[in-house]
Amino acid sequence: MKLASFEVGDSVRIGLAAENDVLIDVTDIVGSDMIKVIRQFEHVVPQLAKASSDPSFTRYSAEDVRWLPPVPKPGKICGVAMNNSASNERKISAPDHPAFFLKPSSCLVGHREAIRVRRYYGSVHPEPELAVIIGRDARDVDAEDAHEHIFGYSMFNDITGNGMRGEDLFQYWALYRTDDGELERREQHLSYAGRYKGSDTFGCMGPWLVTADEVQNPDDLDVHCAVGGETVAEDSTRYYNYKIAELVSFISQFQTLEAGDVISCGTAFKPSAKRKSIHQANFQEVEGPVEMRIDGLGTLTNPVTVEDREIGKWRL
Amino acid sequence: MKLASFEVGDSVRIGLAAENDVLIDVTDIVGSDMIKVIRQFEHVVPQLAKASSDPSFTRYSAEDVRWLPPVPKPGKICGVAMNNSASNERKISAPDHPAFFLKPSSCLVGHREAIRVRRYYGSVHPEPELAVIIGRDARDVDAEDAHEHIFGYSMFNDITGNGMRGEDLFQYWALYRTDDGELERREQHLSYAGRYKGSDTFGCMGPWLVTADEVQNPDDLDVHCAVGGETVAEDSTRYYNYKIAELVSFISQFQTLEAGDVISCGTAFKPSAKRKSIHQANFQEVEGPVEMRIDGLGTLTNPVTVEDREIGKWRL
Repeated sequence: MKLASFEVGDSVRIGLAAENDVLIDVTDIVGSDMIKVIRQFEHVVPQLAKASSDPSFTRYSAEDVRWLPPVPKPGKICGVAMNNSASNERKISAPDHPAFFLKPSSCLVGHREAIRVRRYYGSVHPEPELAVIIGRDARDVDAEDAHEHIFGYSMFNDITGNGMRGEDLFQYWALYRTDDGELERREQHLSYAGRYKGSDTFGCMGPWLVTADEVQNPDDLDVHCAVGGETVAEDSTRYYNYKIAELVSFISQFQTLEAGDVISCGTAFKPSAKRKSIHQANFQEVEGPVEMRIDGLGTLTNPVTVEDREIGKWRL
Repeated sequence: MKLASFEVGDSVRIGLAAENDVLIDVTDIVGSDMIKVIRQFEHVVPQLAKASSDPSFTRYSAEDVRWLPPVPKPGKICGVAMNNSASNERKISAPDHPAFFLKPSSCLVGHREAIRVRRYYGSVHPEPELAVIIGRDARDVDAEDAHEHIFGYSMFNDITGNGMRGEDLFQYWALYRTDDGELERREQHLSYAGRYKGSDTFGCMGPWLVTADEVQNPDDLDVHCAVGGETVAEDSTRYYNYKIAELVSFISQFQTLEAGDVISCGTAFKPSAKRKSIHQANFQEVEGPVEMRIDGLGTLTNPVTVEDREIGKWRL
């Protein structure tokens, strides 16, 4: 089943994505809150199944709605760092477990909404990723059981300001308690992702979510990304260092994952056969739209606009 | 006005915090959703003002409720990094603007709830901070106008797993587009805060929020923190490198801040006169409770429990 969130006028709706770019509006039976739909899915699924063949439900053309992210306000969005084996040869040192960061729900945009980049952001590029949508609370889940907690999948374009990334670095003397209760200094390099991963429109998600029963093997899905019509990634989730179940399990042993939470599983960035890479698709220089596709999940398209504005007066 | 979220039985309530640890239950007039209260505050404030002297409203003793974070599910929590001038001498290199990270709402706990640390987390310490609660949407706000977007203040204990911080570091060759469209490698150190800042119970917030009209100067508030009865920080927000308005303004030029969003403004960690520091309060070795106080914002107390458990089977 493919579930979409969208707006018609000022009204938030939920629809089934059907053939020929048609959205079947099922808001009357499930409400407009995707997290609630996820929580109550077992109860509404018989009605949803009927709706797809019932002509009394309103149908919209995909052209006539405003697409929202399938989960417009997830409780959290975890982004997994450097999970593609194609990045391994560039690692000088790295942990032997998944590492992840958070993106805010305020950065999300849906299908066809613009990625808005400002000149003062510096270099910004796309990162096409498979997104997991959590179905029920997951805490301390072993990898073998992780799939029971997955509601479905979607596409996530983890837009990344690598210009800002290079600016938000600290080299400093961290303090640690020693065994005798005193302090010792350790040199540490830290970086902070608030700006470079979390700026507005830095999370494109959609066009819909696909329930897990329709995705045979999330660890073997082709991923494609083009910018301005030129392919910049031809990759597959089989090149992820950590499998989907491992990511859910690992994160759940630190953070409780809740229904509607999103894990964006890592960038598919193997360059295309013509050797173009996502890192060359700096939106300051390369025009959009960005189009990404993952097997069975549809096509997520977002135009890019560059705003020629200065940063405002943030100093008193 | 001091507004608290709390539970009685399974029911989420909102109350006015009054003298003598009394909570006046105003749920009947404002509902139970603090973000809605913040959005509609102008409309409900006359009724709230009456409630404090109206004996028909139910009163609870602070002992008899379960405290929730004043905003239990903020849209986002931004944590400002290394904003205390006491940290400046430890910086070898650092940006000349605020840097920040995100914490998930799932990490929040209220007053009196336990900070739960596991052995496999390694070293974990408290970071007492002033928290700003946003009142209305803020995007591209100049510092001069930033206070108009602040609803109130609370205390935030930005629990930090500096053990995990030291493990989630990458040194690697980042790729950047050159002027001629090719790629160049730049050595970069990156770190990811998902675990070390976002694990469950790593955000203590409360006991209540205080509306901005009751806080004369947020840039000059004493901050105190004790662990197990021993003072580990005696500091003030006047030692923040960036003022509250500057932080709101700066972040708003990247991320839209929404009603109920939280900015935790940076750690007050100047060691106490006896030279104990927050970095010595590793919860693996030092027992709680953690008690923090900020002028006019009350006292936030959280016990600490250490769970002696292994990480589960996260590898397939």
